[in-house]
Amino acid sequence: MPADDLVQLTREIRQFAEARDWGKFHTPKNLAMAIAGEAGELAAEFQWMTAEESSLSSLSEESLEAIRFEIADVQIYLMRLADVLSVDISEVVRNKIAINETRFSK
Amino acid sequence: MPADDLVQLTREIRQFAEARDWGKFHTPKNLAMAIAGEAGELAAEFQWMTAEESSLSSLSEESLEAIRFEIADVQIYLMRLADVLSVDISEVVRNKIAINETRFSK
Amino acid sequence: MPADDLVQLTREIRQFAEARDWGKFHTPKNLAMAIAGEAGELAAEFQWMTAEESSLSSLSEESLEAIRFEIADVQIYLMRLADVLSVDISEVVRNKIAINETRFSK
Amino acid sequence: MPADDLVQLTREIRQFAEARDWGKFHTPKNLAMAIAGEAGELAAEFQWMTAEESSLSSLSEESLEAIRFEIADVQIYLMRLADVLSVDISEVVRNKIAINETRFSK
Repeated sequence: MPADDLVQLTREIRQFAEARDWGKFHTPKNLAMAIAGEAGELAAEFQWMTAEESSLSSLSEESLEAIRFEIADVQIYLMRLADVLSVDISEVVRNKIAINETRFSK
Repeated sequence: MPADDLVQLTREIRQFAEARDWGKFHTPKNLAMAIAGEAGELAAEFQWMTAEESSLSSLSEESLEAIRFEIADVQIYLMRLADVLSVDISEVVRNKIAINETRFSK
Repeated sequence: MPADDLVQLTREIRQFAEARDWGKFHTPKNLAMAIAGEAGELAAEFQWMTAEESSLSSLSEESLEAIRFEIADVQIYLMRLADVLSVDISEVVRNKIAINETRFSK
Repeated sequence: MPADDLVQLTREIRQFAEARDWGKFHTPKNLAMAIAGEAGELAAEFQWMTAEESSLSSLSEESLEAIRFEIADVQIYLMRLADVLSVDISEVVRNKIAINETRFSK
């Protein structure tokens, strides 16, 4: 199984949550709220930066480390939400790309 | 290549953006802002629902379809942000799970 | 009563909600979620702009009109949340400014 | 001058920012991002609560204090954004209520 398999990562996150009996907290509504919260924290990392300061070559290692954690937090709750709603992330992403292909022709 | 490979999906999203010359828009700051915007739209889908109404068995097909698109939008911008910052999503997710394992012992 | 009195505006918003029997929807949790949703829409207005393009002198009238509506939406739900939690917005804003005065000395 | 006058509060926040020479950071784009960040933190306070737990009578004083600060943070940046865009908050709120009156008839 490849290390970056979405299905496998989703399964690991589910096992983590189930082992702690967090199912009752992980309603779709609550998970959507958690995603908004983490996305807000991710945005906050960049709020006073110029476009240039936000580039990989300009970010401090400390800042980049904080951003990495926020990316992980958004991703974890997004996978959890997709899981409890039986949404196949790869499929919906590819569907959306296909729609965008027609909306934004080259 | 599996259909749900994170690296492969990220590459497809990059090619889509590069084919449209969107690189100048896809600064880390702008992408973080786009993630917050899409996460807000995802939250809005659930804002007046009770916990029960947000469950898979209660959601209307129309509502679920809108939610699927919002999940895709958050995921696409999150992959794009990780890509421009050379962040390995699988790695940061697993690092975060490992940290959470020690913070939330069973 | 001045037209820009926070207490008066909050009362008008409350009357609007009560006349429609929206009390059961306006739990603090739901209102916080609505604020996140509207803040996301407000952010989305600016996401692909440069700092310069987001300035008052550069914004199109169409764009500014959309931004005005999003500001109103965030403000309405924020006043509603403060109202249902008996939070005095003027008081908490002044408290926060006083704290910031000590954190960020001139 | 009444303590809850929106124009007066906005002026105090402007003076605070100008005294610290924060004008260059307070572009509309950055302020919209800051609002999204603070709205995310506000949402995070409520994310695992049930609707009942989020009510004024159920919240702990500690939780309520944290929520008060988050409300203040969203309000401060919202007033700042309105100020730099010359938006009259009272006016846009009343315009939006008038529009909603026609959309949601009693």
